[in-house]
Amino acid sequence: MRKIHVIGIGAGDPDQLTLQAVKALRDTEVFFILDKGEVKADLVRLRRDILGTHLPQGTYRTVEARDPERDRTAEGAGYSPAVGDWRSARAGVFERLIAGELGEDGTGAFLVWGDPSLYDSTLGVLEEVLERGAVAFEYDVVPGISSVSSLAARHRTGLNRVARPVQITTGRRLAEGLPEGVDDVVVMLDAHQTFQRYADTGEDIDIYWGAYLGTPDEILVSGPLAETAPHIIEVRAQAREHKGWIMDTYLLRRRPRDEGASGPG
Amino acid sequence: MRKIHVIGIGAGDPDQLTLQAVKALRDTEVFFILDKGEVKADLVRLRRDILGTHLPQGTYRTVEARDPERDRTAEGAGYSPAVGDWRSARAGVFERLIAGELGEDGTGAFLVWGDPSLYDSTLGVLEEVLERGAVAFEYDVVPGISSVSSLAARHRTGLNRVARPVQITTGRRLAEGLPEGVDDVVVMLDAHQTFQRYADTGEDIDIYWGAYLGTPDEILVSGPLAETAPHIIEVRAQAREHKGWIMDTYLLRRRPRDEGASGPG
Repeated sequence: MRKIHVIGIGAGDPDQLTLQAVKALRDTEVFFILDKGEVKADLVRLRRDILGTHLPQGTYRTVEARDPERDRTAEGAGYSPAVGDWRSARAGVFERLIAGELGEDGTGAFLVWGDPSLYDSTLGVLEEVLERGAVAFEYDVVPGISSVSSLAARHRTGLNRVARPVQITTGRRLAEGLPEGVDDVVVMLDAHQTFQRYADTGEDIDIYWGAYLGTPDEILVSGPLAETAPHIIEVRAQAREHKGWIMDTYLLRRRPRDEGASGPG
Repeated sequence: MRKIHVIGIGAGDPDQLTLQAVKALRDTEVFFILDKGEVKADLVRLRRDILGTHLPQGTYRTVEARDPERDRTAEGAGYSPAVGDWRSARAGVFERLIAGELGEDGTGAFLVWGDPSLYDSTLGVLEEVLERGAVAFEYDVVPGISSVSSLAARHRTGLNRVARPVQITTGRRLAEGLPEGVDDVVVMLDAHQTFQRYADTGEDIDIYWGAYLGTPDEILVSGPLAETAPHIIEVRAQAREHKGWIMDTYLLRRRPRDEGASGPG
Protein backbone atom coordinates (compact mmCIF):
# COMPACT_ATOMS: atom_id res chain seq x y z
CA MET A 1 0.00 0.00 0.00
CA ARG A 2 1.25 3.51 -0.81
CA LYS A 3 1.76 5.76 2.20
CA ILE A 4 1.57 9.54 2.45
CA HIS A 5 2.75 11.74 5.31
CA VAL A 6 1.21 15.19 5.62
CA ILE A 7 3.88 16.96 7.62
CA GLY A 8 3.46 20.29 9.39
CA ILE A 9 6.84 21.99 9.20
CA GLY A 10 6.19 25.03 11.38
CA ALA A 11 5.85 28.68 10.57
CA GLY A 12 9.25 29.28 8.96
CA ASP A 13 11.99 28.53 11.50
CA PRO A 14 13.60 25.20 10.50
CA ASP A 15 14.07 24.50 14.23
CA GLN A 16 10.30 24.52 14.63
CA LEU A 17 10.12 21.04 13.15
CA THR A 18 9.19 18.43 15.71
CA LEU A 19 11.22 15.26 16.23
CA GLN A 20 8.16 13.42 14.88
CA ALA A 21 8.32 15.54 11.69
CA VAL A 22 12.03 14.78 11.26
CA LYS A 23 11.28 11.04 11.62
CA ALA A 24 8.52 11.35 9.00
CA LEU A 25 10.92 13.17 6.64
CA ARG A 26 13.42 10.33 7.05
CA ASP A 27 10.71 7.78 6.30
CA THR A 28 9.87 9.48 3.00
CA GLU A 29 11.19 8.62 -0.46
CA VAL A 30 9.43 11.24 -2.55
CA PHE A 31 8.52 14.79 -1.54
CA PHE A 32 5.83 16.50 -3.55
CA ILE A 33 6.50 20.20 -3.80
CA LEU A 34 3.76 22.37 -5.25
CA ASP A 35 4.93 25.65 -6.67
CA LYS A 36 2.44 28.49 -6.39
CA GLY A 37 4.33 30.67 -8.86
CA GLU A 38 7.21 33.11 -8.88
CA VAL A 39 6.38 35.08 -5.75
CA LYS A 40 6.51 31.98 -3.59
CA ALA A 41 9.87 30.76 -4.93
CA ASP A 42 11.43 31.73 -1.59
CA LEU A 43 9.07 29.31 0.16
CA VAL A 44 9.97 26.46 -2.19
CA ARG A 45 13.63 27.16 -1.46
CA LEU A 46 13.01 27.22 2.30
CA ARG A 47 11.38 23.80 2.01
CA ARG A 48 14.32 22.44 0.04
CA ASP A 49 16.67 23.81 2.71
CA ILE A 50 14.73 21.95 5.39
CA LEU A 51 15.11 18.69 3.46
CA GLY A 52 18.82 19.37 2.88
CA THR A 53 19.36 20.02 6.59
CA HIS A 54 17.69 16.85 7.86
CA LEU A 55 18.28 14.26 5.16
CA PRO A 56 21.44 12.81 3.64
CA GLN A 57 21.74 13.66 -0.05
CA GLY A 58 20.70 10.89 -2.39
CA THR A 59 18.22 9.32 0.05
CA TYR A 60 15.14 11.04 -1.34
CA ARG A 61 13.60 12.58 -4.44
CA THR A 62 11.61 15.76 -4.83
CA VAL A 63 8.95 16.14 -7.47
CA GLU A 64 7.71 19.61 -8.28
CA ALA A 65 4.34 20.33 -9.76
CA ARG A 66 2.54 23.49 -10.65
CA ASP A 67 -0.27 24.26 -8.21
CA PRO A 68 -3.45 25.07 -10.18
CA GLU A 69 -4.34 28.75 -10.05
CA ARG A 70 -7.28 29.67 -7.89
CA ASP A 71 -9.96 32.00 -9.22
CA ARG A 72 -9.36 34.85 -6.80
CA THR A 73 -11.92 37.09 -8.49
CA ALA A 74 -14.79 35.13 -6.91
CA GLU A 75 -16.25 37.00 -3.95
CA GLY A 76 -19.04 36.46 -1.43
CA ALA A 77 -21.33 33.55 -2.30
CA GLY A 78 -19.01 32.54 -5.16
CA TYR A 79 -16.07 32.07 -2.83
CA SER A 80 -16.62 28.52 -1.55
CA PRO A 81 -17.52 27.02 -4.98
CA ALA A 82 -14.40 28.67 -6.46
CA VAL A 83 -12.37 26.99 -3.71
CA GLY A 84 -14.19 23.72 -4.53
CA ASP A 85 -13.24 23.90 -8.23
CA TRP A 86 -9.69 24.71 -7.30
CA ARG A 87 -9.57 21.76 -4.94
CA SER A 88 -10.81 19.40 -7.65
CA ALA A 89 -8.10 20.66 -9.97
CA ARG A 90 -5.58 20.06 -7.20
CA ALA A 91 -6.99 16.57 -6.60
CA GLY A 92 -6.15 15.78 -10.24
CA VAL A 93 -2.58 16.96 -9.73
CA PHE A 94 -2.19 15.02 -6.45
CA GLU A 95 -3.62 11.88 -8.05
CA ARG A 96 -1.13 12.00 -10.91
CA LEU A 97 1.75 12.62 -8.49
CA ILE A 98 0.84 9.76 -6.16
CA ALA A 99 0.00 7.25 -8.89
CA GLY A 100 2.87 8.25 -11.17
CA GLU A 101 5.75 8.88 -8.78
CA LEU A 102 5.20 6.35 -5.98
CA GLY A 103 5.67 2.60 -6.34
CA GLU A 104 3.06 0.21 -4.89
CA ASP A 105 4.76 0.32 -1.47
CA GLY A 106 6.28 3.78 -1.80
CA THR A 107 6.10 6.55 0.79
CA GLY A 108 5.54 10.16 -0.21
CA ALA A 109 5.03 13.36 1.71
CA PHE A 110 3.50 16.80 1.43
CA LEU A 111 5.15 19.50 3.52
CA VAL A 112 2.70 22.02 4.92
CA TRP A 113 3.68 25.37 6.42
CA GLY A 114 2.48 25.76 9.98
CA ASP A 115 -0.05 23.13 11.03
CA PRO A 116 -2.04 21.07 8.48
CA SER A 117 -5.20 21.62 10.55
CA LEU A 118 -5.40 25.39 10.03
CA TYR A 119 -6.40 26.95 6.69
CA ASP A 120 -4.65 24.35 4.62
CA SER A 121 -6.32 22.31 1.90
CA THR A 122 -3.99 19.28 1.75
CA LEU A 123 -6.18 16.98 3.89
CA GLY A 124 -9.33 17.90 1.98
CA VAL A 125 -7.61 17.30 -1.35
CA LEU A 126 -6.27 13.89 -0.26
CA GLU A 127 -9.76 12.85 0.84
CA GLU A 128 -11.03 13.89 -2.58
CA VAL A 129 -8.32 11.81 -4.30
CA LEU A 130 -9.38 8.78 -2.22
CA GLU A 131 -13.03 9.33 -3.10
CA ARG A 132 -12.22 9.35 -6.81
CA GLY A 133 -10.91 5.82 -6.27
CA ALA A 134 -8.24 5.83 -8.99
CA VAL A 135 -5.35 5.41 -6.55
CA ALA A 136 -5.33 3.90 -3.04
CA PHE A 137 -3.08 4.98 -0.20
CA GLU A 138 -2.87 5.36 3.56
CA TYR A 139 -2.02 8.71 5.07
CA ASP A 140 -1.17 10.21 8.41
CA VAL A 141 -0.81 13.74 9.72
CA VAL A 142 2.11 15.17 11.68
CA PRO A 143 0.99 18.32 13.51
CA GLY A 144 3.14 21.44 13.23
CA ILE A 145 3.68 24.72 15.02
CA SER A 146 1.12 27.04 13.45
CA SER A 147 1.82 30.68 12.67
CA VAL A 148 -0.78 31.35 15.40
CA SER A 149 1.33 29.63 18.10
CA SER A 150 4.45 31.20 16.67
CA LEU A 151 2.92 34.69 16.77
CA ALA A 152 1.87 34.28 20.40
CA ALA A 153 5.29 32.91 21.42
CA ARG A 154 7.19 35.74 19.75
CA HIS A 155 4.96 38.32 21.44
CA ARG A 156 5.17 36.31 24.69
CA THR A 157 1.42 36.49 25.11
CA GLY A 158 -1.38 34.00 25.55
CA LEU A 159 -3.99 33.62 22.83
CA ASN A 160 -6.84 33.57 25.31
CA ARG A 161 -7.37 35.33 28.59
CA VAL A 162 -8.39 33.58 31.82
CA ALA A 163 -11.29 31.23 31.10
CA ARG A 164 -12.12 33.14 27.89
CA PRO A 165 -12.39 31.86 24.31
CA VAL A 166 -10.25 32.74 21.29
CA GLN A 167 -11.41 32.70 17.70
CA ILE A 168 -9.24 32.08 14.64
CA THR A 169 -10.69 33.60 11.50
CA THR A 170 -9.88 35.13 8.12
CA GLY A 171 -9.52 38.71 6.91
CA ARG A 172 -12.59 38.17 4.76
CA ARG A 173 -14.68 37.23 7.82
CA LEU A 174 -13.28 40.06 9.91
CA ALA A 175 -14.47 42.49 7.24
CA GLU A 176 -18.03 41.44 8.20
CA GLY A 177 -17.48 42.50 11.81
CA LEU A 178 -15.68 41.52 14.99
CA PRO A 179 -17.11 38.17 16.10
CA GLU A 180 -19.67 38.16 18.91
CA GLY A 181 -18.84 37.05 22.42
CA VAL A 182 -15.10 36.75 21.97
CA ASP A 183 -12.47 39.40 22.72
CA ASP A 184 -9.40 37.62 21.33
CA VAL A 185 -9.41 37.13 17.59
CA VAL A 186 -6.54 35.78 15.49
CA VAL A 187 -6.72 36.75 11.83
CA MET A 188 -5.10 34.78 9.02
CA LEU A 189 -5.17 35.14 5.24
CA ASP A 190 -5.74 38.87 5.36
CA ALA A 191 -4.44 40.54 2.20
CA HIS A 192 -6.33 43.75 2.92
CA GLN A 193 -5.19 44.75 6.42
CA THR A 194 -8.76 44.52 7.61
CA PHE A 195 -7.70 45.54 11.13
CA GLN A 196 -7.78 49.16 9.86
CA ARG A 197 -11.58 49.09 10.03
CA TYR A 198 -11.43 48.75 13.81
CA ALA A 199 -8.71 51.33 14.45
CA ASP A 200 -11.07 54.29 14.74
CA THR A 201 -14.13 52.75 16.35
CA GLY A 202 -13.22 54.07 19.79
CA GLU A 203 -13.02 50.51 21.16
CA ASP A 204 -9.96 49.67 23.25
CA ILE A 205 -8.25 47.08 21.06
CA ASP A 206 -4.63 45.98 21.08
CA ILE A 207 -2.96 44.36 18.09
CA TYR A 208 -0.11 41.83 18.06
CA TRP A 209 1.12 41.59 14.47
CA GLY A 210 3.87 39.48 12.93
CA ALA A 211 5.23 38.79 9.44
CA TYR A 212 7.69 36.15 8.15
CA LEU A 213 7.46 34.57 11.63
CA GLY A 214 10.44 32.47 12.60
CA THR A 215 12.56 33.53 9.63
CA PRO A 216 15.49 35.99 9.63
CA ASP A 217 13.10 38.58 8.11
CA GLU A 218 10.62 38.36 10.99
CA ILE A 219 8.87 41.62 11.88
CA LEU A 220 6.86 42.08 15.08
CA VAL A 221 4.71 45.09 15.98
CA SER A 222 2.28 45.41 18.86
CA GLY A 223 0.36 48.14 20.66
CA PRO A 224 -2.97 49.91 20.86
CA LEU A 225 -4.64 49.43 17.46
CA ALA A 226 -5.55 53.10 16.91
CA GLU A 227 -1.92 54.22 17.19
CA THR A 228 -0.28 51.13 15.73
CA ALA A 229 -2.37 50.43 12.61
CA PRO A 230 -0.80 53.13 10.38
CA HIS A 231 2.70 51.97 11.37
CA ILE A 232 1.90 48.32 10.54
CA ILE A 233 0.46 49.31 7.17
CA GLU A 234 3.64 51.22 6.32
CA VAL A 235 6.00 48.48 7.54
CA ARG A 236 3.98 45.81 5.74
CA ALA A 237 3.94 47.69 2.42
CA GLN A 238 7.70 48.24 2.57
CA ALA A 239 8.46 44.62 3.43
CA ARG A 240 6.15 43.32 0.69
CA GLU A 241 7.74 45.64 -1.86
CA HIS A 242 11.21 44.56 -0.77
CA LYS A 243 10.67 40.78 -0.75
CA GLY A 244 7.95 40.52 -3.38
CA TRP A 245 5.57 38.65 -1.03
CA ILE A 246 4.42 38.70 2.57
CA MET A 247 2.91 36.22 5.01
CA ASP A 248 1.51 37.86 8.12
CA THR A 249 -0.96 37.19 10.89
CA TYR A 250 -2.22 39.04 13.91
CA LEU A 251 -4.15 38.90 17.16
CA LEU A 252 -6.75 41.54 17.97
CA ARG A 253 -7.50 41.80 21.68
CA ARG A 254 -10.35 43.85 23.07
CA ARG A 255 -9.34 45.21 26.44
CA PRO A 256 -11.63 43.83 29.12
CA ARG A 257 -14.00 46.09 31.00
CA ASP A 258 -13.05 44.10 34.11
CA GLU A 259 -9.26 44.52 34.36
CA GLY A 260 -9.10 41.80 37.01
CA ALA A 261 -9.62 39.24 34.26
CA SER A 262 -6.69 40.32 32.07
CA GLY A 263 -3.56 38.37 31.22
CA PRO A 264 -3.25 34.88 29.79
CA GLY A 265 -5.14 32.07 31.53
CA MET B 1 20.87 38.54 34.08
CA ARG B 2 18.83 35.45 34.91
CA LYS B 3 17.13 33.82 31.96
CA ILE B 4 13.95 31.74 31.81
CA HIS B 5 12.70 29.58 28.96
CA VAL B 6 8.99 28.78 28.86
CA ILE B 7 9.02 25.64 26.76
CA GLY B 8 5.97 24.10 25.10
CA ILE B 9 6.60 20.35 25.15
CA GLY B 10 3.64 19.15 23.10
CA ALA B 11 0.56 17.23 24.06
CA GLY B 12 2.16 14.07 25.46
CA ASP B 13 4.23 12.39 22.74
CA PRO B 14 7.92 13.03 23.54
CA ASP B 15 8.53 13.18 19.76
CA GLN B 16 6.27 16.22 19.60
CA LEU B 17 9.06 18.36 20.98
CA THR B 18 10.47 20.74 18.39
CA LEU B 19 14.19 20.99 17.65
CA GLN B 20 13.94 24.50 19.14
CA ALA B 21 12.52 23.02 22.36
CA VAL B 22 15.35 20.47 22.54
CA LYS B 23 17.91 23.29 22.15
CA ALA B 24 16.18 25.25 24.92
CA LEU B 25 16.28 22.16 27.18
CA ARG B 26 20.01 21.85 26.55
CA ASP B 27 20.53 25.52 27.38
CA THR B 28 18.85 25.08 30.78
CA GLU B 29 20.54 24.44 34.12
CA VAL B 30 17.51 24.23 36.39
CA PHE B 31 14.06 22.89 35.55
CA PHE B 32 11.20 24.00 37.76
CA ILE B 33 8.62 21.28 38.10
CA LEU B 34 5.36 22.16 39.76
CA ASP B 35 3.48 19.26 41.24
CA LYS B 36 -0.29 19.58 41.21
CA GLY B 37 -0.79 16.67 43.60
CA GLU B 38 -1.04 12.91 43.54
CA VAL B 39 -3.30 12.47 40.51
CA LYS B 40 -0.86 14.31 38.28
CA ALA B 41 2.19 12.29 39.35
CA ASP B 42 2.10 10.57 35.94
CA LEU B 43 2.56 13.95 34.26
CA VAL B 44 5.54 14.84 36.46
CA ARG B 45 7.08 11.49 35.53
CA LEU B 46 6.43 12.07 31.81
CA ARG B 47 8.24 15.40 32.10
CA ARG B 48 11.21 13.77 33.86
CA ASP B 49 11.31 11.14 31.09
CA ILE B 50 11.51 13.89 28.46
CA LEU B 51 14.48 15.43 30.26
CA GLY B 52 16.14 12.04 30.64
CA THR B 53 15.73 11.32 26.93
CA HIS B 54 17.22 14.57 25.67
CA LEU B 55 19.80 15.54 28.27
CA PRO B 56 22.93 13.79 29.54
CA GLN B 57 22.64 12.92 33.23
CA GLY B 58 24.39 15.33 35.55
CA THR B 59 24.07 18.34 33.22
CA TYR B 60 20.96 19.76 34.84
CA ARG B 61 18.99 20.00 38.06
CA THR B 62 15.28 19.73 38.67
CA VAL B 63 13.56 21.56 41.47
CA GLU B 64 10.09 20.51 42.46
CA ALA B 65 7.61 22.77 44.16
CA ARG B 66 4.06 22.34 45.25
CA ASP B 67 1.65 24.22 43.03
CA PRO B 68 -0.78 26.25 45.21
CA GLU B 69 -4.28 24.81 45.27
CA ARG B 70 -6.89 26.71 43.32
CA ASP B 71 -10.25 27.46 44.86
CA ARG B 72 -12.35 25.37 42.51
CA THR B 73 -15.55 26.05 44.40
CA ALA B 74 -15.76 29.58 42.94
CA GLU B 75 -18.27 29.73 40.11
CA GLY B 76 -19.61 32.36 37.74
CA ALA B 77 -18.58 35.92 38.66
CA GLY B 78 -16.26 34.55 41.37
CA TYR B 79 -14.27 32.55 38.86
CA SER B 80 -11.83 35.13 37.52
CA PRO B 81 -10.93 36.64 40.94
CA ALA B 82 -10.31 33.11 42.29
CA VAL B 83 -7.94 32.54 39.37
CA GLY B 84 -6.31 35.90 40.19
CA ASP B 85 -5.67 34.92 43.84
CA TRP B 86 -4.30 31.60 42.71
CA ARG B 87 -2.00 33.31 40.24
CA SER B 88 -0.65 35.61 42.95
CA ALA B 89 0.07 32.61 45.15
CA ARG B 90 1.86 31.00 42.20
CA ALA B 91 3.82 34.22 41.59
CA GLY B 92 5.16 33.91 45.14
CA VAL B 93 6.26 30.34 44.46
CA PHE B 94 7.86 31.27 41.10
CA GLU B 95 9.65 34.22 42.69
CA ARG B 96 11.19 32.05 45.40
CA LEU B 97 12.24 29.43 42.83
CA ILE B 98 13.86 31.93 40.46
CA ALA B 99 15.57 33.99 43.16
CA GLY B 100 16.59 31.03 45.29
CA GLU B 101 17.62 28.40 42.76
CA LEU B 102 19.17 30.41 39.92
CA GLY B 103 22.50 32.25 40.14
CA GLU B 104 22.79 35.81 38.80
CA ASP B 105 23.50 34.47 35.28
CA GLY B 106 21.63 31.21 35.61
CA THR B 107 19.13 29.79 33.12
CA GLY B 108 15.96 28.08 34.26
CA ALA B 109 12.95 26.66 32.47
CA PHE B 110 9.31 25.86 32.95
CA LEU B 111 7.97 23.00 30.85
CA VAL B 112 4.41 23.54 29.67
CA TRP B 113 2.19 20.81 28.23
CA GLY B 114 0.95 21.67 24.76
CA ASP B 115 1.52 25.27 23.77
CA PRO B 116 2.17 28.01 26.37
CA SER B 117 -0.26 30.31 24.52
CA LEU B 118 -3.39 28.23 25.17
CA TYR B 119 -5.01 28.02 28.61
CA ASP B 120 -1.77 28.08 30.50
CA SER B 121 -0.94 30.57 33.24
CA THR B 122 2.88 30.45 33.16
CA LEU B 123 3.32 33.63 31.08
CA GLY B 124 0.85 35.59 33.21
CA VAL B 125 2.53 34.44 36.41
CA LEU B 126 6.01 35.40 35.13
CA GLU B 127 4.73 38.89 34.22
CA GLU B 128 3.34 39.18 37.74
CA VAL B 129 6.72 38.18 39.23
CA LEU B 130 8.44 40.87 37.13
CA GLU B 131 5.88 43.48 38.24
CA ARG B 132 6.58 42.69 41.89
CA GLY B 133 10.16 43.74 41.18
CA ALA B 134 11.87 41.49 43.73
CA VAL B 135 13.77 39.47 41.11
CA ALA B 136 14.78 40.47 37.57
CA PHE B 137 15.06 38.09 34.62
CA GLU B 138 14.64 37.82 30.87
CA TYR B 139 12.37 35.20 29.40
CA ASP B 140 11.45 33.74 26.05
CA VAL B 141 8.73 31.39 24.85
CA VAL B 142 9.17 28.25 22.75
CA PRO B 143 5.86 27.35 21.08
CA GLY B 144 4.64 23.77 21.34
CA ILE B 145 2.19 21.44 19.62
CA SER B 146 -1.09 22.10 21.41
CA SER B 147 -3.57 19.36 22.25
CA VAL B 148 -5.79 21.14 19.71
CA SER B 149 -3.33 20.54 16.84
CA SER B 150 -2.67 17.06 18.12
CA LEU B 151 -6.39 16.23 18.23
CA ALA B 152 -6.90 17.42 14.65
CA ALA B 153 -3.85 15.52 13.38
CA ARG B 154 -4.91 12.25 15.01
CA HIS B 155 -8.41 12.58 13.56
CA ARG B 156 -6.87 13.72 10.25
CA THR B 157 -9.23 16.64 10.05
CA GLY B 158 -8.89 20.38 9.70
CA LEU B 159 -9.97 22.62 12.56
CA ASN B 160 -11.74 25.04 10.26
CA ARG B 161 -13.67 24.53 7.06
CA VAL B 162 -13.06 26.50 3.87
CA ALA B 163 -12.82 30.19 4.69
CA ARG B 164 -14.66 29.62 8.00
CA PRO B 165 -13.58 30.48 11.56
CA VAL B 166 -12.83 28.13 14.45
CA GLN B 167 -13.27 28.98 18.11
CA ILE B 168 -11.33 27.52 21.01
CA THR B 169 -13.19 27.70 24.28
CA THR B 170 -13.76 26.04 27.65
CA GLY B 171 -16.34 23.61 28.95
CA ARG B 172 -17.60 26.33 31.26
CA ARG B 173 -18.25 28.66 28.30
CA LEU B 174 -19.81 25.91 26.22
CA ALA B 175 -22.33 25.35 29.04
CA GLU B 176 -23.62 28.88 28.27
CA GLY B 177 -24.36 27.91 24.66
CA LEU B 178 -22.74 27.15 21.35
CA PRO B 179 -20.93 30.30 20.23
CA GLU B 180 -22.59 32.48 17.58
CA GLY B 181 -21.43 32.58 13.98
CA VAL B 182 -18.97 29.72 14.22
CA ASP B 183 -19.60 26.05 13.39
CA ASP B 184 -16.27 24.58 14.52
CA VAL B 185 -15.65 24.74 18.24
CA VAL B 186 -12.76 23.17 20.12
CA VAL B 187 -13.43 22.63 23.82
CA MET B 188 -10.71 22.41 26.45
CA LEU B 189 -10.80 22.15 30.25
CA ASP B 190 -14.16 20.40 30.28
CA ALA B 191 -14.55 18.27 33.39
CA HIS B 192 -18.31 17.92 32.89
CA GLN B 193 -18.65 16.51 29.35
CA THR B 194 -20.63 19.56 28.37
CA PHE B 195 -21.05 18.21 24.84
CA GLN B 196 -23.94 16.11 26.21
CA ARG B 197 -26.12 19.22 26.29
CA TYR B 198 -25.98 19.41 22.49
CA ALA B 199 -26.50 15.72 21.75
CA ASP B 200 -30.28 15.90 21.70
CA THR B 201 -30.94 19.33 20.23
CA GLY B 202 -31.65 17.91 16.79
CA GLU B 203 -28.77 19.89 15.30
CA ASP B 204 -26.42 17.99 13.01
CA ILE B 205 -23.21 18.05 15.01
CA ASP B 206 -20.18 15.79 14.72
CA ILE B 207 -17.71 15.30 17.57
CA TYR B 208 -14.00 14.49 17.34
CA TRP B 209 -12.87 13.54 20.83
CA GLY B 210 -9.45 12.52 22.14
CA ALA B 211 -7.89 11.72 25.52
CA TYR B 212 -4.25 11.24 26.58
CA LEU B 213 -3.32 12.46 23.08
CA GLY B 214 0.08 11.35 21.85
CA THR B 215 0.62 8.92 24.72
CA PRO B 216 0.38 5.11 24.63
CA ASP B 217 -3.00 5.45 26.38
CA GLU B 218 -4.47 7.66 23.64
CA ILE B 219 -8.19 7.19 22.95
CA LEU B 220 -9.93 8.63 19.88
CA VAL B 221 -13.66 8.61 19.22
CA SER B 222 -15.54 10.47 16.50
CA GLY B 223 -18.97 10.47 14.91
CA PRO B 224 -22.38 12.11 14.97
CA LEU B 225 -22.75 13.64 18.45
CA ALA B 226 -26.20 12.19 19.17
CA GLU B 227 -25.00 8.60 18.70
CA THR B 228 -21.45 9.06 19.96
CA ALA B 229 -21.94 11.07 23.17
CA PRO B 230 -23.04 8.14 25.39
CA HIS B 231 -20.11 6.03 24.16
CA ILE B 232 -17.60 8.81 24.92
CA ILE B 233 -19.04 9.27 28.40
CA GLU B 234 -18.65 5.56 29.11
CA VAL B 235 -15.13 5.31 27.67
CA ARG B 236 -14.06 8.46 29.50
CA ALA B 237 -15.39 7.28 32.88
CA GLN B 238 -13.63 3.92 32.53
CA ALA B 239 -10.31 5.49 31.53
CA ARG B 240 -10.47 8.02 34.33
CA GLU B 241 -11.24 5.30 36.85
CA HIS B 242 -8.38 3.17 35.54
CA LYS B 243 -5.66 5.85 35.42
CA GLY B 244 -6.88 8.12 38.20
CA TRP B 245 -6.93 11.20 35.95
CA ILE B 246 -7.87 12.22 32.42
CA MET B 247 -6.91 14.97 29.99
CA ASP B 248 -9.24 15.23 27.04
CA THR B 249 -10.32 17.70 24.41
CA TYR B 250 -12.76 17.72 21.52
CA LEU B 251 -13.96 19.45 18.39
CA LEU B 252 -17.67 20.02 17.83
CA ARG B 253 -18.53 20.58 14.17
CA ARG B 254 -21.96 21.71 13.05
CA ARG B 255 -22.67 20.23 9.67
CA PRO B 256 -23.05 22.97 7.09
CA ARG B 257 -26.39 23.62 5.46
CA ASP B 258 -24.43 24.12 2.21
CA GLU B 259 -22.58 20.82 1.71
CA GLY B 260 -20.41 22.42 -1.00
CA ALA B 261 -18.50 24.23 1.72
CA SER B 262 -17.53 21.13 3.71
CA GLY B 263 -14.06 19.72 4.32
CA PRO B 264 -10.96 21.46 5.64
CA GLY B 265 -9.91 24.71 3.97
